[in-house]
Amino acid sequence: MPDDVLAGHLQELRRGTVVMAALATLSRPTYGYALLETLADAGFAVDANTLYPLLRRLEKQGLLTSEWNTEESRPRKFYRVSPDGQSLLESLLAEWQELHASIEKLR
Amino acid sequence: MPDDVLAGHLQELRRGTVVMAALATLSRPTYGYALLETLADAGFAVDANTLYPLLRRLEKQGLLTSEWNTEESRPRKFYRVSPDGQSLLESLLAEWQELHASIEKLR
Repeated sequence: MPDDVLAGHLQELRRGTVVMAALATLSRPTYGYALLETLADAGFAVDANTLYPLLRRLEKQGLLTSEWNTEESRPRKFYRVSPDGQSLLESLLAEWQELHASIEKLR
Repeated sequence: MPDDVLAGHLQELRRGTVVMAALATLSRPTYGYALLETLADAGFAVDANTLYPLLRRLEKQGLLTSEWNTEESRPRKFYRVSPDGQSLLESLLAEWQELHASIEKLR
């Protein structure tokens, strides 16, 4: 099997989980780079070129709010989950549990 | 939160699992419609308009083989996982377990 076929299918499986992982982490205000590191530590190796546009898209959808912190030498934009984002997270986690149960049934 | 935002994110989460569910089911030769029903019973409501092109794509990638069964009144194309498909399935299941552990860590 060509490497790119394997990589493509693995990526498709991972892609859907990134929003869920980001929302779960952003229950406390976090800036982009710190979020990248937290996700990587938890086993979600997300590319910055994937994550940063995703954060902007989620903010535009009203699922995240953001605020600039200018207290430190370098201003950073902190993201945090909104009430709508929290509600989406709960729906995604419930769906994930169902998918997990379904996969266990099939394997 | 608009319904289409919720639906979009849920669909993205589900999308990546369909290949895994299909490969897991096709360890025994199955025709498209029967596969649809098995998946639906297991909790994967997949649309025929999604599944049939997916089966053709997986066959093109060498992950499935197919054979026409003409013994019954209506000829049906039976799909079955190939050795490459079996190997992909194992990779996807391993990745899925890791994702599941990662999500549990974050929530």
